[in-house]
Amino acid sequence: MKLDDIKKLHQKKYRNSFGFYLVEGEHLVLELEKAADTNKVLMGAQLFVTDSYQHWSSRLPKTLLSEKQMARITDTKSPQGIIAIVPCSASHDVTQPLVMPISNKERTIYLHEIQDPGNLGTILRTLAWFGNFRCLISPESVDPYNPKVVRASMGAIFHVPIEVDVPLKELIHRYSRFACLDIQGKRVSNNKFSDYDCYIFGNEARGLPQAEIDQLKATTFSIQGAGNIESLNLATAVNICAYELNRDTMFN
Amino acid sequence: MKLDDIKKLHQKKYRNSFGFYLVEGEHLVLELEKAADTNKVLMGAQLFVTDSYQHWSSRLPKTLLSEKQMARITDTKSPQGIIAIVPCSASHDVTQPLVMPISNKERTIYLHEIQDPGNLGTILRTLAWFGNFRCLISPESVDPYNPKVVRASMGAIFHVPIEVDVPLKELIHRYSRFACLDIQGKRVSNNKFSDYDCYIFGNEARGLPQAEIDQLKATTFSIQGAGNIESLNLATAVNICAYELNRDTMFN
Repeated sequence: MKLDDIKKLHQKKYRNSFGFYLVEGEHLVLELEKAADTNKVLMGAQLFVTDSYQHWSSRLPKTLLSEKQMARITDTKSPQGIIAIVPCSASHDVTQPLVMPISNKERTIYLHEIQDPGNLGTILRTLAWFGNFRCLISPESVDPYNPKVVRASMGAIFHVPIEVDVPLKELIHRYSRFACLDIQGKRVSNNKFSDYDCYIFGNEARGLPQAEIDQLKATTFSIQGAGNIESLNLATAVNICAYELNRDTMFN
Repeated sequence: MKLDDIKKLHQKKYRNSFGFYLVEGEHLVLELEKAADTNKVLMGAQLFVTDSYQHWSSRLPKTLLSEKQMARITDTKSPQGIIAIVPCSASHDVTQPLVMPISNKERTIYLHEIQDPGNLGTILRTLAWFGNFRCLISPESVDPYNPKVVRASMGAIFHVPIEVDVPLKELIHRYSRFACLDIQGKRVSNNKFSDYDCYIFGNEARGLPQAEIDQLKATTFSIQGAGNIESLNLATAVNICAYELNRDTMFN
């Protein structure tokens, strides 16, 4: 890929057309290489490094750049001197057909019109932490391959199967038991909360589109509070649910 | 307070010397006014508005500013036209002496050298959501009255008693049963997790200073993961613990 094209990967439309996203800095590249041990699609990544990283040992193909060339492809004021381009398809779990029999253990988190890159990054980090989660993202959401999301995910983006632009209406063809999070509902600590295969969360400000949720016959759950403030942060709500779904099962 | 002094409240040292912080925008000011119903110290706040908010009904003293004057005191590119200065002491729970008998229900979250304003804001939002939490912040931490923290807290800062610059070493004079969060420890789902009165969390990158934690004879707990990635986000860890502490008690 040409340097000018790599620079374009800062924009969503070019990430879509080239099928790669950017991963910047030593910490994230290390996480990428570790993850490539188990996810072979990540071996399609390529490294670009300046002098200071020329001895960086890696199984990934490596191209040496001048400081000036590096400055051209990065947005960071003081670039670390190591950057990778990574296939977007690595998150798509290409080992499985798109409509697959869901494994017994895997659960799906569906995010409807999530906007904040920090929220999405933190959610991915939590889903990777607990494992066995798939993340589906609706149209009109923040792009998970946005550099801010990648950074906030702290490498979790290499571990969580992600699908983008999945319309809420299509979920019905793939799952049968839906739960959604809203203000008024059963407690997530209810032992039935783990009985669903798709968990739906709404936009930061607008919440969920009620008519579509009704069509899915989703059961509503909520995280009960003391009533001081209007709402929990979206990422906090997702993270608490992910914790609750793993609380009694996996690690006990 | 003079306009030039209000502008200075963007900086920590002036917030400390004047004892006020800034709250900007309609949503946060509404939350401030609601919270003033139960926290009388918040009635020491003052509003500054432009023409578009001149009919804003409020029990707080209100000063009308020109657009130009407003632009001078705000950092926002397109200011909403409504801003408040709020006494920092409103978070200090001045209804109680500093070393007080802790109420049976209240629990303390201690944050050691927390750096990220978004993390602190989200944590405060979660603590306000569940209620009955006090937040202690160590020296060398992000200032809770930093405008980014205030914004991320979504008004929660008006509800949570906060104390700043509290050294870890002083906790021993105030609490007797300490829990801390770290990688290797008992599960937070363990029913003993709720038996403590002070919960200690470390810095985003460095974690906790082990020698000082040992002196407090703190019991270590952890949120078990699947081993894919190194760590959970700090705010996520605090939020899950706050949820766990309320899971079986308050709302069931």
